[in-house]
Amino acid sequence: MKKVIQFLPDNVTMEVEEGENLLTAAAKAGIYINAYCGGDGVCGKCKVKIESGEVASDKAMKLRAADQEAGFRLACQSRVVSDLVVRIPEMKSADGKTLARKPKTTRAISARSLDALIGSWEVDPPVEKRFLKLDPPTMEDNVPDLQRLLRAIRKGCYDCAEPTYDHPQLLHELPFTLRESDWGVTVILLRGKRAEEPDRIIAVEPGNTTDRLYGLAIDIGTTTVCGVLLDLNSGEVLAEASAYNEQISHGEDVISRIIYSQRPGGLKTLQERVVRTINQVIETVCRQVIISPSDISYIMAAGNTIMSHLLLAMNPKYIREAPYVPTCSQFPLTRAAALGVYAHPSVRLFLYPSVASYVGGDIISGVHACRMYQSPEVTLFIDIGTNGEIVVGNQDWMVCAACSAGPAFEGGGIKFGMRASAGAIENFHIHPETLEPMIVTIEQVKPRGICGSGLISIVSELLEARVIDQQGKFDRRRSHARLREGEDGYEYVLVWAKDSMMGEDIVITEVDLDNLIRAKGAMYAGYQTLLESVGMSFADLERVILAGNFGAYIDLERAISIGLLPDIDREKFFYLGNGSLLGCQISLTDHKRFRERTAVSSLMTNMELSENSEFMSHYMAALFLPHTDMSLFPTVQAKLREA
Amino acid sequence: MKKVIQFLPDNVTMEVEEGENLLTAAAKAGIYINAYCGGDGVCGKCKVKIESGEVASDKAMKLRAADQEAGFRLACQSRVVSDLVVRIPEMKSADGKTLARKPKTTRAISARSLDALIGSWEVDPPVEKRFLKLDPPTMEDNVPDLQRLLRAIRKGCYDCAEPTYDHPQLLHELPFTLRESDWGVTVILLRGKRAEEPDRIIAVEPGNTTDRLYGLAIDIGTTTVCGVLLDLNSGEVLAEASAYNEQISHGEDVISRIIYSQRPGGLKTLQERVVRTINQVIETVCRQVIISPSDISYIMAAGNTIMSHLLLAMNPKYIREAPYVPTCSQFPLTRAAALGVYAHPSVRLFLYPSVASYVGGDIISGVHACRMYQSPEVTLFIDIGTNGEIVVGNQDWMVCAACSAGPAFEGGGIKFGMRASAGAIENFHIHPETLEPMIVTIEQVKPRGICGSGLISIVSELLEARVIDQQGKFDRRRSHARLREGEDGYEYVLVWAKDSMMGEDIVITEVDLDNLIRAKGAMYAGYQTLLESVGMSFADLERVILAGNFGAYIDLERAISIGLLPDIDREKFFYLGNGSLLGCQISLTDHKRFRERTAVSSLMTNMELSENSEFMSHYMAALFLPHTDMSLFPTVQAKLREA
Repeated sequence: MKKVIQFLPDNVTMEVEEGENLLTAAAKAGIYINAYCGGDGVCGKCKVKIESGEVASDKAMKLRAADQEAGFRLACQSRVVSDLVVRIPEMKSADGKTLARKPKTTRAISARSLDALIGSWEVDPPVEKRFLKLDPPTMEDNVPDLQRLLRAIRKGCYDCAEPTYDHPQLLHELPFTLRESDWGVTVILLRGKRAEEPDRIIAVEPGNTTDRLYGLAIDIGTTTVCGVLLDLNSGEVLAEASAYNEQISHGEDVISRIIYSQRPGGLKTLQERVVRTINQVIETVCRQVIISPSDISYIMAAGNTIMSHLLLAMNPKYIREAPYVPTCSQFPLTRAAALGVYAHPSVRLFLYPSVASYVGGDIISGVHACRMYQSPEVTLFIDIGTNGEIVVGNQDWMVCAACSAGPAFEGGGIKFGMRASAGAIENFHIHPETLEPMIVTIEQVKPRGICGSGLISIVSELLEARVIDQQGKFDRRRSHARLREGEDGYEYVLVWAKDSMMGEDIVITEVDLDNLIRAKGAMYAGYQTLLESVGMSFADLERVILAGNFGAYIDLERAISIGLLPDIDREKFFYLGNGSLLGCQISLTDHKRFRERTAVSSLMTNMELSENSEFMSHYMAALFLPHTDMSLFPTVQAKLREA
Repeated sequence: MKKVIQFLPDNVTMEVEEGENLLTAAAKAGIYINAYCGGDGVCGKCKVKIESGEVASDKAMKLRAADQEAGFRLACQSRVVSDLVVRIPEMKSADGKTLARKPKTTRAISARSLDALIGSWEVDPPVEKRFLKLDPPTMEDNVPDLQRLLRAIRKGCYDCAEPTYDHPQLLHELPFTLRESDWGVTVILLRGKRAEEPDRIIAVEPGNTTDRLYGLAIDIGTTTVCGVLLDLNSGEVLAEASAYNEQISHGEDVISRIIYSQRPGGLKTLQERVVRTINQVIETVCRQVIISPSDISYIMAAGNTIMSHLLLAMNPKYIREAPYVPTCSQFPLTRAAALGVYAHPSVRLFLYPSVASYVGGDIISGVHACRMYQSPEVTLFIDIGTNGEIVVGNQDWMVCAACSAGPAFEGGGIKFGMRASAGAIENFHIHPETLEPMIVTIEQVKPRGICGSGLISIVSELLEARVIDQQGKFDRRRSHARLREGEDGYEYVLVWAKDSMMGEDIVITEVDLDNLIRAKGAMYAGYQTLLESVGMSFADLERVILAGNFGAYIDLERAISIGLLPDIDREKFFYLGNGSLLGCQISLTDHKRFRERTAVSSLMTNMELSENSEFMSHYMAALFLPHTDMSLFPTVQAKLREA
């Protein structure tokens, strides 16, 4: 249930889910509260007064009894249980003056959900079960078992092609399955990839099992493998699970995985690791619904080109070397069990095709899910990550590219960078006068590092507070305990050692800033290059779709502030979430949508940016906060002038 | 080179190949020469006088010098090297009278060769090799390796379907094969089963290997596996080999194999044994031409339904139980290596489809080879063996059946029965007055048993000499050292212990005769039942095609004498040989002929004879030599009257 919070004295009102942490809510609302410990409750700084309504707390607050009685609470220890009016105490400057407060302009704005645009899909999956009662053989009718089965499948269908089968196991078991079930069996049929193709018999089960038809959608990420178990009779999601891709111990990103795969036995190891991860996901979802992995009738998967190659044990060597050639883009329909995946021997694993070495099946699946290939609106599809993937287009054309943004958004190349997990600073505000921080971490524990969304918050805040300039350099004229010369050059201390999880200062350095600027610069230059390649500019964009987990947490306003996203109407931004997994789910449930996916690949043209001179000049121009050409960022320009 | 022999005093002239054994030649010509030792040279009985011409001998003859000088030779030790005039010495009866001689009427007549009717076939095999020089990838053209390959394959062919592939190994190796060969590769393509189907990529080899294209035809018999290695560029036969089916140690015939397959692990053992036999054949042919088994690009095989099931490890259990249902009749196109066959991992093994449990792919292949499905002439196709298979029909219709003739023709159920190998009595004559035998064995060694063709000779000779009556019973009124009461009832001693290989008397018993009569009766009843089922009789037959190895050695006149073959114009009989292997060879060489094979299966209707009442009454009527209805055997009737 939604609750309304009014923050005083700024008089900012916001809606939150019941149970939301008050510090997190304030940070999202753009309300600065002095807070050092990330939400752990130990610094005791984030004292707020509850003027009306109720908050709950899971532990005793580090507050004097008098404060408690006066209605003060630690925001970081408070859960919202009713509508609230919350007053933030006034802050005094070193000389005792009350510091003026004014509402922040960088109030968090999330992109809109794409639900309405994705639309619904039919429950008419590419696999179907049919119960058949066969006539037992007689001397007058002793056609072979398989022929009898095929005859029953085609009964009443005179122009349909004879179904095929291809797993020998089927023939090994068929005579016994038929007789043990007294000639009443359920066939699982996989519809032809195209309408004119014959169906394929996947399995024959004794008795009537038509009420049990399961499919698995699986997104094979470089970091995480996510799976969804679907009831294909109802389309319902039965269970979800995810697991870290076990390949991680052999490299954080795709490039290091490719390097590892070139070692003796490396390719095999990586293949086994990802299969083990998939199996872990399968076991988890099956346990939740108490079915066996062999009850799953079809698996739809998507992953980037490297993940797809590694899953199929195809050597990705030449993906890394110019001119970046993968082995194939349409992956063979494989029997899951042949790869080592826990599945019935005849079950297929479908992998979304890729477009190029760095625009993979996960992107195709996302584009497929959001239907931009069916919309007249010119859309920019973005998946931000180490390899940022960009697609521009509509129902008539699509052009795509990957830009090697570097790992900054995933915590790589950042001194205290980390993935988005407990203790990662995910939100940050700075007091424009005291320069003291407000630190909010994931799971509200002591901070131990900075994740991607935290990094965007920090940089946009430092920029707006003029602690750094538009080149990402600290203003050396300012003197403050938190600003200092560190071993990597100038830095700002986000968290003092005493408040951090590991007991050391957490800082952001000029090197970190430089890495972030390169990362966001590459993305922005990518959008520009693709748009120009089709004679368009940002003004022509009718929609921007943010895919991927990172996109879900992005604060639009701040991302635009630093130049990661274009400065256009915020209403045009949509959030897709894990489009790769969603595409798999849709394909698994609706075979007509599944067949449409060929339209996606056929419309898409890949551009190589790495040696593209337009891209390089756009990139150089983007190495600035937000950009050297401020006319591209009118709202940011206005805000910076104001500040 | 042919040589002419004139036998005196009978004045019978025949043509033989140079090098032919003189005793064998005489036996074929129907010339009786007293000979006990099978041709081993030890009995010294087969003395003949060479009146003109030359014979050669490999060892010193057991002849007195005087005889030698007078021009006498042992027929069994003589090879024909020139045209000859040979005089057979007069025989004296016990009382010293010269025994009258008259030429035998049972002179051996072989069926005509079918060569002309089979016709020629084109060298245009279902697999082809194509050398391709690909454009190396550039940044402007960095499509995946597979796509680049497919593009090159389709170059200049705008309406052809995109080739498929399905062995993952192909993708594992492709990037390296392409680069190591500097983008010059040879693709092996398998043409679509039907004209409209896309080709399939079997393998990609570095460099230009188009001059090496090999195929293997293989006939998987219950007893023997025969293979032929073909150069598919020229259609030429490069090597041939055969090996006993190693399954034999687990049962001589298909029924005992089925029984063995039901033991724990039995199916797996039988599968491994036949694969081992196939591998032995592959190794032998490859060694002859010094190629590797992985150089073979396609394998075409044919076997009966049980052999086909066992090769694919499909359980044949229900083939043995009424209503005799096999698992399938169209066998899946399998990767040979998946079965354990020595072959490149992507090479296919095609198995001819079967029609029913006891009319298998070997028969289809034979019918396919002899083109009876394209001829207007009503043809009877016969494959004599433990399971005699019969097909009647022409280009418009075909009806087929199997009759369980029992193993007599393969030496089973016959006291001294054996397979056709060294020491088997293959030809036999009896002196109508002395009742002394003329024994000719395979490889002219001491006799050790009787093979199928020997059995037919013996029975027809005993019948003509009235030693047995038309019920297959010995004439107990005759008194002769060779006719006696043995442990299995009355018997005729073919070979005395001293002349036999194992040092024991070789006999033929009434039980043996009974088994033979049942075997030939089943075949004959089969022809009748099939013909009647289509409203025809023997008079309607325009051709009789004898398939199988047994057919090759059959003496038409004698086979008709005992009622194994119908008593019709001898000119209508044709000999096909190993039609199963021939069909595989043709399919391997000419893809158009290969595609036509579907016409064979679609025309054929199977009849189950085992519970057919017409068959049963025909069978009862046929349990007589040659038949109870002598009007069906006019020439035999005449001959018996004469004798």
